[in-house]
Amino acid sequence: MKVAKRVLGIDPGLLHTGWAVVDTCGQSRKYVASGVILPKAKLDMSERLITIFRELDEICKTFEPDECSIEIIFVNKNPKTTLILGQARAAAIVAVANNNISVFEYEPNVIKKALTGAGHADKSAVDKMVKMLLPVAQPKSADEADAIAIALAHTNMVKNLIAK
Amino acid sequence: MKVAKRVLGIDPGLLHTGWAVVDTCGQSRKYVASGVILPKAKLDMSERLITIFRELDEICKTFEPDECSIEIIFVNKNPKTTLILGQARAAAIVAVANNNISVFEYEPNVIKKALTGAGHADKSAVDKMVKMLLPVAQPKSADEADAIAIALAHTNMVKNLIAK
Repeated sequence: MKVAKRVLGIDPGLLHTGWAVVDTCGQSRKYVASGVILPKAKLDMSERLITIFRELDEICKTFEPDECSIEIIFVNKNPKTTLILGQARAAAIVAVANNNISVFEYEPNVIKKALTGAGHADKSAVDKMVKMLLPVAQPKSADEADAIAIALAHTNMVKNLIAK
Repeated sequence: MKVAKRVLGIDPGLLHTGWAVVDTCGQSRKYVASGVILPKAKLDMSERLITIFRELDEICKTFEPDECSIEIIFVNKNPKTTLILGQARAAAIVAVANNNISVFEYEPNVIKKALTGAGHADKSAVDKMVKMLLPVAQPKSADEADAIAIALAHTNMVKNLIAK
């Protein structure tokens, strides 16, 4: 496949940060790689953040994505959890942006809609669509699967933009 | 003054990130430099975060601090503001930790207590103590003054640890 664009999808978290690299060219998509960054449990906040930053920096240098896709987060029922998630997300964004890769931020329901057609699709519908579009990808965790979904959603979004 | 330790204090924010470099040797402290990082208003979230990261990276490379001091943030009345502040804080921590500088995190009342002796000291008491300890420093904004206070508090904390 002639690669038109390489997309890095990120599902950030202080304990587990999922990442996925997907190539796209017209209607075709190809799975390249994916994984999960797991800062060690004994690390403090700043050490966890730098683990996320350095591993994503390495991933950017290895796979050289053209664009990055990441979810916008909102304040949920537990503002403390939101704050922790926000800090993990910032470490991820800084790692990518420091490699001069454009970061695209999407609301969760926009990602679901881009993949399934429904903004309120449940998790199993999203997983089903990911398996259908990229059967080669065999995510070993929910965070990795979500990162693949986030990358795929961006390729759909870009396609829609071009089609307009 | 023989420099025993150089401390970088940071008061993070998405619009204004104050920073200050203070040298310490025993009871002596010396003002080195301070300023405010001001990401341009038209920038989006990821561009603001990378501005904070890159400017602090440059400050770390220029002044080569030994340690960094930064406030712990808590969820306040406005969780959305807390989330934004958390992301700015993470960009700052990653910039410093990526230069292999240890990051020390303190609760706001611990910083106030280390400076004035009272955990619930008001802002004017903190400012007065900063002026007394470092008359040479002429902060041009509240963020810059707070960063100086955060750096100074850490030098007091370290001194207390040694004195124990």
